[in-house]
Amino acid sequence: MDNKALYNLSYGVFMLSTKYEDKVNGCITNTCMQVASNPTRIAIACINKNYTCELLKKSGIFALTLLDETCTFETIKHFGLQSGRDVDKFADMKTAVDINGLPYLGWQACSVISAKVVDSMDLGSHTLFIAEVTDAKLLNDKGPLTYADYQARVKPKPGSEAPKQEEPEKKIVGYRCKICNYFYEGSTLPDDFSCPVCGHGPEDFEPVYG
Amino acid sequence: MDNKALYNLSYGVFMLSTKYEDKVNGCITNTCMQVASNPTRIAIACINKNYTCELLKKSGIFALTLLDETCTFETIKHFGLQSGRDVDKFADMKTAVDINGLPYLGWQACSVISAKVVDSMDLGSHTLFIAEVTDAKLLNDKGPLTYADYQARVKPKPGSEAPKQEEPEKKIVGYRCKICNYFYEGSTLPDDFSCPVCGHGPEDFEPVYG
Repeated sequence: MDNKALYNLSYGVFMLSTKYEDKVNGCITNTCMQVASNPTRIAIACINKNYTCELLKKSGIFALTLLDETCTFETIKHFGLQSGRDVDKFADMKTAVDINGLPYLGWQACSVISAKVVDSMDLGSHTLFIAEVTDAKLLNDKGPLTYADYQARVKPKPGSEAPKQEEPEKKIVGYRCKICNYFYEGSTLPDDFSCPVCGHGPEDFEPVYG
Repeated sequence: MDNKALYNLSYGVFMLSTKYEDKVNGCITNTCMQVASNPTRIAIACINKNYTCELLKKSGIFALTLLDETCTFETIKHFGLQSGRDVDKFADMKTAVDINGLPYLGWQACSVISAKVVDSMDLGSHTLFIAEVTDAKLLNDKGPLTYADYQARVKPKPGSEAPKQEEPEKKIVGYRCKICNYFYEGSTLPDDFSCPVCGHGPEDFEPVYG
């Protein structure tokens, strides 16, 4: 089986937000598709380890901001490369709120979908949520950011962060996930490691030299 | 709720094939996403009325050909705009077969995924299938056809099939689905009609004058 064959599946890039009691959080995801009409239902897959997933299981409601082609890496980094367990991602950020009172991004975004979970399925690494769309709004007329665009254009190239020239006697100080840029600190990446952000395994990590 | 907001979700375009006993069929779909890793699982949504869906419920196995950017409208038309109940779509067609003996397209296609259904959920208009990927192959190095590409570039423009000039005393002879081009013959489209090919409702149909 060639995992690269699966890279040809097309996805968008989204900011998924939810709120349970006084906890609010959002993360970056790439999986959402409409799965039924009358009523309109969508499916999203979330990594079980993620804080947003933990909150969503309790709240049963979410807002999905569809990021547009002007989306910057700063936005992806803010919501996608840190955990809501460590920081309040919405602190000092003035966002619009949807019909359920959930924050969504009114910038770098072409649509927002508000949904209510009607079923879910635990698939081990991820939970698949089936949700009824309770509201949907067009936010601007820009095209959506696709996951392929994100990889090709928005995500910083490895060479832009470190000099290409190889240093003598270099040491591995960590591993970077080639899929989402998550950084694992340490000289050895465990064989059974999976990225806490995007769920990919060791084969998708590259060593970072200090 | 503005349904157009949902059009900003990004999809690919696929030929989904399956086989049950001596019946083999394939159709065009746009919904597939990876939903879990270790083991790798994908989800697809199929219209319940479709013959491929009927066969898939019995067979539990499918091949998903990921169409590439060179895909022509003829291919879409062959698999997407006629029913396997009326014609044998694979008759006189030499295709490759996957590990389960299912036919897939070796042309205009960048990947093929072979999968085994592990769970399903009937959502009314569609059934959502969760499947374990049992094989995946890269077929070429072309980019995948996205649903947005298909709409913008591959699908014939309405004007290319009928003269733009309006005729006097024109009569409605049918309705065309703006989503998939399905043609409904008749002067009145029922209010509760849904497209047998893509599942969209009357709001996505436009009148065709004879």
